[in-house]
Amino acid sequence: VSRVHAEILSIGTEIMLGEITDTNAAFIASKLPQFGLELRYVTQVSDDRARLQAAIELAWQRSDITFTTGGLGPTEDDLTRDCIAAALGETMTIDAAEEAHLRAWFAQRTRDFPERNLRQAMVIPSSRVLPNPRGTAPGWWVERDGHVIVVMPGPPAEMTHMWEREVDPELARRATSVLVARTLKTSGLGEGTVDERLGTLWQSTNPAIGVYARRDGVHVRLSASAATREEAWALIQPAEEQVRAVLGAAIWGVDDDTLAAGVASLLRERGLTLAVMESATGGALADALTDPEGASDVFLGSLVTYATQAKIDLGVPGDVVYTHGVISQATAEAMAHAARARLGADVGLGLTGIAGASEVEGQPPGTMHIAVTDGTRTDYRHYAYYQGREAAKRRAVTEALNLLRAFLQTAP
Amino acid sequence: VSRVHAEILSIGTEIMLGEITDTNAAFIASKLPQFGLELRYVTQVSDDRARLQAAIELAWQRSDITFTTGGLGPTEDDLTRDCIAAALGETMTIDAAEEAHLRAWFAQRTRDFPERNLRQAMVIPSSRVLPNPRGTAPGWWVERDGHVIVVMPGPPAEMTHMWEREVDPELARRATSVLVARTLKTSGLGEGTVDERLGTLWQSTNPAIGVYARRDGVHVRLSASAATREEAWALIQPAEEQVRAVLGAAIWGVDDDTLAAGVASLLRERGLTLAVMESATGGALADALTDPEGASDVFLGSLVTYATQAKIDLGVPGDVVYTHGVISQATAEAMAHAARARLGADVGLGLTGIAGASEVEGQPPGTMHIAVTDGTRTDYRHYAYYQGREAAKRRAVTEALNLLRAFLQTAP
Repeated sequence: VSRVHAEILSIGTEIMLGEITDTNAAFIASKLPQFGLELRYVTQVSDDRARLQAAIELAWQRSDITFTTGGLGPTEDDLTRDCIAAALGETMTIDAAEEAHLRAWFAQRTRDFPERNLRQAMVIPSSRVLPNPRGTAPGWWVERDGHVIVVMPGPPAEMTHMWEREVDPELARRATSVLVARTLKTSGLGEGTVDERLGTLWQSTNPAIGVYARRDGVHVRLSASAATREEAWALIQPAEEQVRAVLGAAIWGVDDDTLAAGVASLLRERGLTLAVMESATGGALADALTDPEGASDVFLGSLVTYATQAKIDLGVPGDVVYTHGVISQATAEAMAHAARARLGADVGLGLTGIAGASEVEGQPPGTMHIAVTDGTRTDYRHYAYYQGREAAKRRAVTEALNLLRAFLQTAP
Repeated sequence: VSRVHAEILSIGTEIMLGEITDTNAAFIASKLPQFGLELRYVTQVSDDRARLQAAIELAWQRSDITFTTGGLGPTEDDLTRDCIAAALGETMTIDAAEEAHLRAWFAQRTRDFPERNLRQAMVIPSSRVLPNPRGTAPGWWVERDGHVIVVMPGPPAEMTHMWEREVDPELARRATSVLVARTLKTSGLGEGTVDERLGTLWQSTNPAIGVYARRDGVHVRLSASAATREEAWALIQPAEEQVRAVLGAAIWGVDDDTLAAGVASLLRERGLTLAVMESATGGALADALTDPEGASDVFLGSLVTYATQAKIDLGVPGDVVYTHGVISQATAEAMAHAARARLGADVGLGLTGIAGASEVEGQPPGTMHIAVTDGTRTDYRHYAYYQGREAAKRRAVTEALNLLRAFLQTAP
């Protein structure tokens, strides 16, 4: 199969000043493999006529399909349309239907039509308009002599919407090979252990298997290419079954699943409710637990007891804190019991530790004590690892969710 | 002043697959203006010998200074050094000092020296080695015929460290003009109002003034260029005083300040403590309040009462909830009072609303009621705005911090 060569041009001076990070390019890049498109170049260019036109000429010459984002606004700085017309030697004219559409857009919002917005109704002979229901800048699908330029607006909400509605279906229609992928997310196993257990599965190239260490555990990615999505999925399916047979309960989710959503599902399956008392994570654990839609069915709340007195006021025995210290297994366990009792939950989780850069009670920065209990059975985990305050909070959230998951999976 | 033209090359196949977002380019881009460097091109290239060499040749020819990141590892895929040598027609040799350094690095970690890592000790006649204390891949400063290539490793922690220690000082030494900037962050005023109040200040070009609407309010950015940093700051200072005179208390911070840090400072200045009861934000408000180092001096905790019964258990009168509804001003105010009472704080904040996509109690998704009280004085704000669950939580956190700030600024 001869590969189709793709290129991305991100257009706009804000990107070049580092004021915004170009997330559009990463979005488009992640979508291309499924259509069998091989991305060869990503270029950012500022709103400069000569350089933009040169970049478009180069892309037109060296790539089969080029995706541009940005530079479609109504101002003098927005040069994408002009430069494509110049690069292809074509003349822009106002498209009557597009002009009517733009005027209607402004009329509907009871705003006067600014004449400079007429630029946005311009077309060239090789372009087909891509509607933009989220803004005033339509895109273009430009095609001539076997080369394509797909022209999209810069604001990510407009771009991704146009991608899903216009670009994705068109690329799917043209694709001669597609690639699909499934990610299986695990926790509790090291990268080496996962490698080893996968054994000979490794030697397969279609589907291909990749193993990646991520913040929320080790991910196993299966990808397959074929002439159709159905055929590609048919290659993935038996491989996925083999991986599941080997890794079993270590797999907590797939693709876009989050640990928090996995914990919420386990709670729902078992008909249990959860309450938390957290200090070092400062609410970040509750924040993660409330991200999945429908979390309120199973998550009652969290007592963010940043001050020691707050812990005691809410049910941690003063004795425990004074005898064992705030940063201790005993306090974490007492917090788990107090959260459970105070909020009337089936399961309680307690977390105490040090997110700051200084030692507390002789323990190093990044120390975390985490306990979970259902009143009779209690699990506990602790560690010390420091790479800054933000990272300490994030890591503790991941560890707490992992501990919860393991606790809920163990049959009572 | 003739401008020095800069270019960035981000090297690596992971970037091209959309698996990682290229944050290095945005980091470097944001640093260049202060040295008077004008960034003209940012290009991402995969680990492909022909394309990488072509990209380097093009950069060498069209730009005065090029920054590369990535492709410095020990494997066959890491081609940056080879391609620079080829593009410049120079021959690589092993640098004895660098080899000794690498061998020592491995010996110190009691690991055998892998012979393939010798690649990392290679140099060319035009290169000077940039040490990398955080990894095994040293950088290069390549200079010939008035052109420069600065070669840095891909991992952001290694790259930014090398930037601060090696690249920043060298660029500062060579800069013939520098640009410095100060951002003043405001809240409570619209972009139009800020524009209007700044009046004729606008016409200044050095310092230049920019006004930007951001999630945490309107930012006013002052930037000035001069021969030295001192001279540039001397241009900024009177302009900053003028802006401060005009916008006054609407300014809550500068540069990297966050709203949460501003609130913590105000609490500290006034010798007050804060407690929160939040539901729709699910702990995200507490998470933000505990991000600044030292938050524990003033922030006692948050009661994340996701379930209605949890609100009542922790001090919200059942009457209020049943009469006015959970999503109401009365409940938000009762939550503020309950937080204050339960945790023994001077100031209490209550937040209730709808982060999910469905209506609750006849109110639309995104509805938020926020109240703050010191026991005698109570402020309240509400709004309804929905762009998804995550965005609803983030926006409510910003609104709550703004309300707190306004409350604390009003003299009691």
